[in-house]
Amino acid sequence: MTMSKRAQRADRAEATGDDVDQTVLRSYVGYNMKRAYLGIRADFIASLAHLELNPSQFSALVIIVANPGVSQSALARALSVERSAIVALINTFEKRGLVSRDPVPGDRRSYALRATEAGKRHFAQAVEATDAHEKRYFARLSEEERATLIALLNRIED
Amino acid sequence: MTMSKRAQRADRAEATGDDVDQTVLRSYVGYNMKRAYLGIRADFIASLAHLELNPSQFSALVIIVANPGVSQSALARALSVERSAIVALINTFEKRGLVSRDPVPGDRRSYALRATEAGKRHFAQAVEATDAHEKRYFARLSEEERATLIALLNRIED
Repeated sequence: MTMSKRAQRADRAEATGDDVDQTVLRSYVGYNMKRAYLGIRADFIASLAHLELNPSQFSALVIIVANPGVSQSALARALSVERSAIVALINTFEKRGLVSRDPVPGDRRSYALRATEAGKRHFAQAVEATDAHEKRYFARLSEEERATLIALLNRIED
Repeated sequence: MTMSKRAQRADRAEATGDDVDQTVLRSYVGYNMKRAYLGIRADFIASLAHLELNPSQFSALVIIVANPGVSQSALARALSVERSAIVALINTFEKRGLVSRDPVPGDRRSYALRATEAGKRHFAQAVEATDAHEKRYFARLSEEERATLIALLNRIED
């Protein structure tokens, strides 16, 4: 190896933090999860920005489209978030004309959520952007490896 | 199945959000990553709370102990965080007597970070708590599966 290649490698190592011993930190599943998740999240946020949706709003819209008439409580449980967060999120969707809140006959405390026509069109664009993000971001993993990754993640969570 | 078992199952499904169709959402690698990561993070925060360390502080302490004399800039690069965040974090560590900031001869802009004796003892306790958290939280995965998970996560990030 020539000195200039060595120097280049050292520069690159310094720029990426590879000049620092990270062996212990990288031995933890949790730290690797954090690094991977934060990278994915940043790319996903950028991928949805033109639709003015953040990841949580995207998740909520997917659930509402797949479950017409779902209640705010059921949506909160499905996404494992506080009901108050869902109420705020649905307020935003309602103002933007993406989701309607319909009264539930016989239950004055509940609302049935449905995507409007505009909401369904927005959803279709968001799914397209998300599919493109996933395809690009996980390009180094085969279909089978992605399935393995999802299965391992779900086993942890169970 | 008796009616009471059905009812119990329905109650459980409602409590966990399983009464809602999440098929589309769960098909995304990113969403599964988010769910898994947030669960791990909550458990890790609780596991370190008695040591008054958050996950970022733990990561920084691990790097400093493994790399005596590391600079703030190199630490920031290794953890992929802003240098200003590291400066604030090291201020806290210095006040708590866990890390010393020594001048670097010939470089007035840089400091060499080292764990103090108290910092090393705190680090040993934190590693013990983290090992216990990882062992408990990832109990459903074999050693081999954990290694596969880490390898897949690192392939994404590369």
